[in-house]
Amino acid sequence: MTYLDGQSEALAFLDDQLDDCLERLFALLRVPSISTDPKYAPECGRAAQILSDELASLGFRSRVQPTGGHPMVVAHHDGPAPHILFYGHYDVQPVDPVELWRGDPFEPKLEQRGDGSKFINARGASDDKGQLRTFIEACRAWKAVSGALPCRVTIFLEGEEESGSPSLEPFLRAHSDELQADLAVICDTSMWDVATPAITFSLRGNVAGEVRIHGPSRDLHSGLYGGAARNPLQVLAEILASLRDEQGRVTLEDFYDGVRPISAEMKAAWERLAFDGDAYLRDVGLQRPAGEEEFSVLEQIWARPTVEINGVSGGYTGEGFKTVIPSEAIAKVSFRLVGDQDPKRIWSSFERHVRARLPSDCTAMFRERGGSRAILLDSASNEMGAVRAALASEWGAEPAMVGSGGSIPVVNAIRDILGLNAVMVGFALNDDNIHSPNEKYDLRSFHKGARSWVRILSALGAQALPAGAEDLQAV
Amino acid sequence: MTYLDGQSEALAFLDDQLDDCLERLFALLRVPSISTDPKYAPECGRAAQILSDELASLGFRSRVQPTGGHPMVVAHHDGPAPHILFYGHYDVQPVDPVELWRGDPFEPKLEQRGDGSKFINARGASDDKGQLRTFIEACRAWKAVSGALPCRVTIFLEGEEESGSPSLEPFLRAHSDELQADLAVICDTSMWDVATPAITFSLRGNVAGEVRIHGPSRDLHSGLYGGAARNPLQVLAEILASLRDEQGRVTLEDFYDGVRPISAEMKAAWERLAFDGDAYLRDVGLQRPAGEEEFSVLEQIWARPTVEINGVSGGYTGEGFKTVIPSEAIAKVSFRLVGDQDPKRIWSSFERHVRARLPSDCTAMFRERGGSRAILLDSASNEMGAVRAALASEWGAEPAMVGSGGSIPVVNAIRDILGLNAVMVGFALNDDNIHSPNEKYDLRSFHKGARSWVRILSALGAQALPAGAEDLQAV
Repeated sequence: MTYLDGQSEALAFLDDQLDDCLERLFALLRVPSISTDPKYAPECGRAAQILSDELASLGFRSRVQPTGGHPMVVAHHDGPAPHILFYGHYDVQPVDPVELWRGDPFEPKLEQRGDGSKFINARGASDDKGQLRTFIEACRAWKAVSGALPCRVTIFLEGEEESGSPSLEPFLRAHSDELQADLAVICDTSMWDVATPAITFSLRGNVAGEVRIHGPSRDLHSGLYGGAARNPLQVLAEILASLRDEQGRVTLEDFYDGVRPISAEMKAAWERLAFDGDAYLRDVGLQRPAGEEEFSVLEQIWARPTVEINGVSGGYTGEGFKTVIPSEAIAKVSFRLVGDQDPKRIWSSFERHVRARLPSDCTAMFRERGGSRAILLDSASNEMGAVRAALASEWGAEPAMVGSGGSIPVVNAIRDILGLNAVMVGFALNDDNIHSPNEKYDLRSFHKGARSWVRILSALGAQALPAGAEDLQAV
Repeated sequence: MTYLDGQSEALAFLDDQLDDCLERLFALLRVPSISTDPKYAPECGRAAQILSDELASLGFRSRVQPTGGHPMVVAHHDGPAPHILFYGHYDVQPVDPVELWRGDPFEPKLEQRGDGSKFINARGASDDKGQLRTFIEACRAWKAVSGALPCRVTIFLEGEEESGSPSLEPFLRAHSDELQADLAVICDTSMWDVATPAITFSLRGNVAGEVRIHGPSRDLHSGLYGGAARNPLQVLAEILASLRDEQGRVTLEDFYDGVRPISAEMKAAWERLAFDGDAYLRDVGLQRPAGEEEFSVLEQIWARPTVEINGVSGGYTGEGFKTVIPSEAIAKVSFRLVGDQDPKRIWSSFERHVRARLPSDCTAMFRERGGSRAILLDSASNEMGAVRAALASEWGAEPAMVGSGGSIPVVNAIRDILGLNAVMVGFALNDDNIHSPNEKYDLRSFHKGARSWVRILSALGAQALPAGAEDLQAV
């Protein structure tokens, strides 16, 4: 048999066994694996152990791997190409203020709405225990019906995602050979809306740092020196003001080198999303897009680079007033990058831009904090086509191909350290209250999420079959 | 006899009695009247009492007047017109770090340099006990030789000048009738150089306040919103950058209304001062004047208005980095004013300037902290002529007519509350270490300072004589 043969059985298995799937999720949700609070460290260890034991029982070579913080779970299962690296995290956010929950955040309940739809109320129901279990349940279903997986799978679960992932990068570096794969998939994101699945396929890169403009050798009295002495706050204001032109374009030399035009296909797809840019801005008290005039809000955020001033300080900023010309003024600045923009070259261009505008009696000191290139998966690749088709057939709707304006640390780490692109597919909804009281995960997200992974694994396995095998699949 | 007749006797009296004058100064210097430290409050009271008692012994109607803080000394002495209001302060700065002093800061010593010149080492020797005593010793001399004073004199001594003068304005308001006079004189400033006395005759005014630019309703993630969301720090930078043009001129509408050209006489006089503007800037690490190109450093500071950014804050300014688009950004801004520039109108023009540059989805809030007009005494007035001539004859050099770029609170208070212009004449030197360890006052400053006041009182009395009386004086 080919793996495709088992798909309908695997889907049926998930439908039949939904209660058991839920019970396994509830068991995991009962473990208060709050990573940021050291007193829950044993619970984090317990969650990791539960997951590792389960994966071992499914035939994975699985282990709990200690780190300086909470442990990782790493589990390997053989299978045909491609080799998929799945990432999820078993730790959860704190539950404060606990009095706003309808019940114990670690005693999951299945609740029902007026329309009959159901959801799971518990900390971690959505972020990320419910989501990571959709993948594990899909693997279980495949194993149950076929004794195998449609692809080779490595599962990698982290326990520090909600507390800054301090062990992630060292761990990836130390185990980069073991974690090699053809494609990474991550289940920690949302649907586009309740009817439309989503694939996050592009992330802006970034580079950030600080510029410190130094003028007089000491703070001066603005009465005794004002007018004649160079004021670093004035110099800084002029430099920062010069970073954008009136059309919202960034003025740095060579800034747009490597920025690719948005493809007609993507432009059309994003227009179909009917994203309400005005509402997006209105929600945060704004009225009109501040970016390049010829691009929509979505394009400004997902596909266009920008410069942002993230902080400015200098002079007297306390209560009252002090007539000072400060010796220095500081700005924290970051750039969001797209396409092939190079963080190092962008930062150099910024330094040149500042120095070119510096009066002869001021100096500038820079502290670059590093950055990362943008990530842009090929939306027309075979793998992406497989994932898209699988999601479309499960949900009856073409998945939204979405971008992310910000970096996602794990995606960057996987790309930078393992050299792997990560496709992000998740089934959360925007009203899941992740990080808030009464976090929930729709039963439909959980059930159809698992079904989606059954199809995705199958589709990925099928697209990797040798040419000519397509006829075989249709059998 | 006319009062002029006694001048040489009064000068001779000061020469003869210099040791006694010094002893009275030393007695006052031994009182640790540190106003900022509450534990020295009794010493402040003691210093006030010593001075009041002495003035009473000289024939003044003198009293120590309590305030909410340290007391004032107010003393009146009759005499012919004009009526002079003299201001000085009997409080001193703290002495820390006391180990850097050559001896007890409150045990004054007369020390001698290699060239035979002498100086008094003690806290307050220059600022302001030594200086205020030059005036009192001049009054004593006049009284000793003529039994009268050449003018009507009110002496007003404060005890909180080194701690922010909290009681000064309320006191002036409460006693504005009693403190009326024709002219105020203040002895709390420096000579131009060791050979050249100085009269401070112009002070820039000011108006200051805060502008708060509000954009998004909350802080935003610069990845998720960067590019599309208006950044108040960017808006603020653009507005602040627009306050000056490339020639250093302030760009506010009507800003230069009321600014008077610098008179040819004053330009020439200031050129004669041979002020080294380059050195002035070099001393604080700067190389070239930042103000209007067509004016010298001295003119930029003394006679031209300016805008200064005194503080900017917004976004994340701590260690490290935070990718935030802040909800608001704040700047503290002040203007230095000259001529007839009106603080209220300048601030309104600033508000208009900001509002005109505000994107439609930002708002601006302003907090004006008030201000005061510039002070510009008529350098050609009779009184000024009298003071200039008196100083010239004592020192053998025309006094420098100097400006002050900053406000001097007591001068503003006297002008605003009493409606009096204050002529500032002082005999301190720039190396007097006021506010530092080993404060000193040259014996020559003290001696010739007192002699200067003998001449000034005489000259002021003489210039007020009825027309035709000049011949009489020459007798």
